[in-house]
Amino acid sequence: MAGFKHLVIVKFKEDVVVEDILKGMQKLVSEIDAVKSFEWGQDIEGEEMLRQGFTHAFLMTFEDKQGYTAFVGHPCHVEFSATFSTAIDKIVLLDFPSVVAKAAT
Amino acid sequence: MAGFKHLVIVKFKEDVVVEDILKGMQKLVSEIDAVKSFEWGQDIEGEEMLRQGFTHAFLMTFEDKQGYTAFVGHPCHVEFSATFSTAIDKIVLLDFPSVVAKAAT
Repeated sequence: MAGFKHLVIVKFKEDVVVEDILKGMQKLVSEIDAVKSFEWGQDIEGEEMLRQGFTHAFLMTFEDKQGYTAFVGHPCHVEFSATFSTAIDKIVLLDFPSVVAKAAT
Repeated sequence: MAGFKHLVIVKFKEDVVVEDILKGMQKLVSEIDAVKSFEWGQDIEGEEMLRQGFTHAFLMTFEDKQGYTAFVGHPCHVEFSATFSTAIDKIVLLDFPSVVAKAAT
């Protein structure tokens, strides 16, 4: 699915229970219809130098930019973000219309 | 599609013609069967502070880790990487088995 993407890569603080964060995120995306799909992953084998301390990637897909904007302003997202921001050591966010250059067959 | 993901986020050097890089990448993924899907995007509106200079995200999907390993060792990838690495100012790579927490409907 192309659509509009919200990509978050993070390094969590050392004392953070990542499972709790994931549960909150799972609840968040299930509550907000504008989130059309959500997948995530943890890099456990990449080269440390290349991932520069980042360990987790979270990728949400929206139908379009309007869907993303609705998500960002949603009260559940605002509440979640406040908690999430206390858990992170480093973060990079990228938001972009996705270009599908090779489609899954 | 879940599978194994190869996520690359970059900031290109200032004098780089990104269109040329994209053409090379498009050729690369079309040449290598192990790449099941490929999408990318350019963040043109996110907050500079949150994207920390990174501008582009590239996301490739493989059936499994073996597919990814085949891609990495493929002569076309080795050749492309040599060129690509000269074009980048900053890069983060994350490779991970994807967990689909909300599927596209």
